[in-house]
Amino acid sequence: MAKSVLYMSMSLDGFVAGPDGTNDDGLGDGGERLHRWLMESTANERGLPGRPSGTNGEVWDAFMATGAVVAGRGTFEPAGGWGGDHHDGVPIFVLTRDPERHQPHAKPRVTFVAEVAEAMERAKDAAGDRDVLVHGVGVTRLALAAGVLDELHIHLVPVLLGEGRRLFEHLGPGRVELERLDTREGEDGVTHLRYAVTTRHRMRDAG
Amino acid sequence: MAKSVLYMSMSLDGFVAGPDGTNDDGLGDGGERLHRWLMESTANERGLPGRPSGTNGEVWDAFMATGAVVAGRGTFEPAGGWGGDHHDGVPIFVLTRDPERHQPHAKPRVTFVAEVAEAMERAKDAAGDRDVLVHGVGVTRLALAAGVLDELHIHLVPVLLGEGRRLFEHLGPGRVELERLDTREGEDGVTHLRYAVTTRHRMRDAG
Repeated sequence: MAKSVLYMSMSLDGFVAGPDGTNDDGLGDGGERLHRWLMESTANERGLPGRPSGTNGEVWDAFMATGAVVAGRGTFEPAGGWGGDHHDGVPIFVLTRDPERHQPHAKPRVTFVAEVAEAMERAKDAAGDRDVLVHGVGVTRLALAAGVLDELHIHLVPVLLGEGRRLFEHLGPGRVELERLDTREGEDGVTHLRYAVTTRHRMRDAG
Repeated sequence: MAKSVLYMSMSLDGFVAGPDGTNDDGLGDGGERLHRWLMESTANERGLPGRPSGTNGEVWDAFMATGAVVAGRGTFEPAGGWGGDHHDGVPIFVLTRDPERHQPHAKPRVTFVAEVAEAMERAKDAAGDRDVLVHGVGVTRLALAAGVLDELHIHLVPVLLGEGRRLFEHLGPGRVELERLDTREGEDGVTHLRYAVTTRHRMRDAG
């Protein structure tokens, strides 16, 4: 069955973007450091722009093999909605408080959804037996709270940014236990940490 | 030459203690989860209380092999000053704003020092060719700012605490680059991440 999997690059001090995230790419000042492992690709076996080589490339392949995307508007908008095609034309589900307002202007494969549990369910249906790529800080918080996030793949970047936007913030009380599934040393000092979410006891009883 | 090495257990969301850190052990509510990998020892080859087995035990051996300790009062006091002996009778240097007030009451191997750079220098002198064990949130921030922290050994615990005390907070602007030295999968899901601090461009020019 499809799993919902968060893929995020994070500094050792927990940031996924630098401060002042109002610039066009949404990465904030200095935030591009976190994606250097993706940008400085030296090989390109499949002809995809930006595919890194080695272990990093295998991680790239994993998230490019997902069958649907769930993101918040805070991720979707700064990325220009990926031109309506994040990868391979898979459907994109975007969380927003006001789907009715955004849907009329959406590209064909983009669906605006108000509830994270609904977004995840529809994305899993669309993905079939492939995983669902989850991306973004707000979506992470909501999905953890709703108990609908299955795995975390953190690309741990060997840097302390000092300030910026944290991935895990305002989660609130209540411990979430994880199970370590895989740890891989990637190129450029990035360590790929994969965890399953094993306990979910926040806010909601069911997704 | 001796290196100053931070050893800290940290949750994936960056916490080294739970909220309400006023309880006796300074770990805060639920913070003991972070030290479970140390407490649930199943073997005890060297007869040391709490030495875990396997990979976790090897990490334990590394920090027990250090030749001096540098900690802040916020770490020292809740731990009861380790009875004046953290391990093997090595000297303990405690950062405080007011060394004169605390020194007269100190145990023989405990020295109160006002400046982090001085504490680290004296600890390295005392440690000889062994490393210096650094411990604590405040000391980490000060040592990074002063450019006197050589390595970070993070014991990454597979849990999201949601709230508590962060290891890396208020570091302020200015990126600190790290070099990944070692990644080891320990028992109980703990991943031991070892980094060298390779760039230091904060506040001070020299330690």
